[in-house]
Amino acid sequence: MVIPCIDMKIILIGAGNLATQLAVALQKKGMTPAYIYSRTRESAEQLSERLRDVPYSTDISQVPTDGDLYIFAVKDSALLDLVSRMPSNRGLWVHTAGSMDMEVFAPYTARYGVFYPMQTFSKERETDFDDIPIFVETNHTDDTERLQKLAGRLSTKVYEATSEQRKYLHLAAVFACNFSNHLYALCDRILSEHGLPFETMLPLIRETAAKVADMPPAQAQTGPAIRYDKNVIDKQMALLSDPTMRQIYDLMSRSIHETNKH
Amino acid sequence: MVIPCIDMKIILIGAGNLATQLAVALQKKGMTPAYIYSRTRESAEQLSERLRDVPYSTDISQVPTDGDLYIFAVKDSALLDLVSRMPSNRGLWVHTAGSMDMEVFAPYTARYGVFYPMQTFSKERETDFDDIPIFVETNHTDDTERLQKLAGRLSTKVYEATSEQRKYLHLAAVFACNFSNHLYALCDRILSEHGLPFETMLPLIRETAAKVADMPPAQAQTGPAIRYDKNVIDKQMALLSDPTMRQIYDLMSRSIHETNKH
Repeated sequence: MVIPCIDMKIILIGAGNLATQLAVALQKKGMTPAYIYSRTRESAEQLSERLRDVPYSTDISQVPTDGDLYIFAVKDSALLDLVSRMPSNRGLWVHTAGSMDMEVFAPYTARYGVFYPMQTFSKERETDFDDIPIFVETNHTDDTERLQKLAGRLSTKVYEATSEQRKYLHLAAVFACNFSNHLYALCDRILSEHGLPFETMLPLIRETAAKVADMPPAQAQTGPAIRYDKNVIDKQMALLSDPTMRQIYDLMSRSIHETNKH
Repeated sequence: MVIPCIDMKIILIGAGNLATQLAVALQKKGMTPAYIYSRTRESAEQLSERLRDVPYSTDISQVPTDGDLYIFAVKDSALLDLVSRMPSNRGLWVHTAGSMDMEVFAPYTARYGVFYPMQTFSKERETDFDDIPIFVETNHTDDTERLQKLAGRLSTKVYEATSEQRKYLHLAAVFACNFSNHLYALCDRILSEHGLPFETMLPLIRETAAKVADMPPAQAQTGPAIRYDKNVIDKQMALLSDPTMRQIYDLMSRSIHETNKH
């Protein structure tokens, strides 16, 4: 099958969870990255193989300078250093970070922007990009259109968002995804300490997540904290031997109760 | 269509979220409760109508004494009082509470137990009982079998669990469901304060919940806290003006980092 190509030479900087899933999704849509850079040979090799032998380097100075789009999908802490060492070129440079201002590129290149897919990525679990919200921003209207077009090939949900808005999107995502997942991990710990299988929790976890598509989360709230059922709360606190878990239980219960009073 | 009936006269005590969903699910399987008690006339009437005119009362002394199964689906704080005022009878009495010992019935009746469906219930959202784990326990082997049979008509996932195990199941459920939902509510608050739609978060929330069916939650963890990316963490803390939300952010981030170090 011949997939019509978007006329863009894409250079991918990074080979971590997000870079991997993004590259796989791009390839599926006929937009295989032309070149990969990764700090570590192992990651570069792994991703190169997965994409059926895309050339790669672990030396940023070797990255081709004739790319149309440079996607920096790396940890925030590595981004600035890599950007400063990238050979200068005329391509559009974008990063994928929620909390980084677009202007980090300004000292180094003329055309730049952000391509932020809001999802949780793991190397092992293939991500379906179809309904992942992608937030784009660039410093030129033309480039915004180009980036929207590319994003639109991956997902049906493409939005323009300023760096300021993106900061709050990322913050909100940390609450909804990273912190929720940690609660699942604490739940897993409680169960395994008492010989109970985590899988019994999956229908509850699924329904809790599904419910908020139908009603606002504050309205979907159930459990002892919303009624501030002190009897249950005290009994449950007493079951927790770990001081951090007890603190989390206490703080979350009070916060639920506060929210509900308004 | 004639649905074969389980030979049990079921009396439902309560007409709240769980009682409503349970009654609807029982009716679907040809096991409509024969009588409803509720403290408030409004709830009793509403549920009675929904079940197509099941008789009801708001006076516990009026509840029929020839029932086979009495299901107490009420708030923990109301349970003991209702149990103590229930007219004595030879039926099997069960409650649906996660954190209540089965022995609360012992002073009042001879045959008793627990029927604990682990799910989050709302009156407005119909609950599919098919894969809801139901944990049962009684003080007689025969009654355990009867209760398992009834539960098996509603769900494919029926387990026996002692009161001690059930306490930890309920505690774990509070972390996985009630606290996660509250994080969704905080996420909603952040977004609405900045004119961003909550629906952009739904794919992320869904994927976060789906992921833990494939891998243990500790392994699924992503985000700034797991890398302890102090730069992002500090920037995000500074965006939160609400002191409780800042406390939650701080505590959860430290807990994620601690968990990941082990």
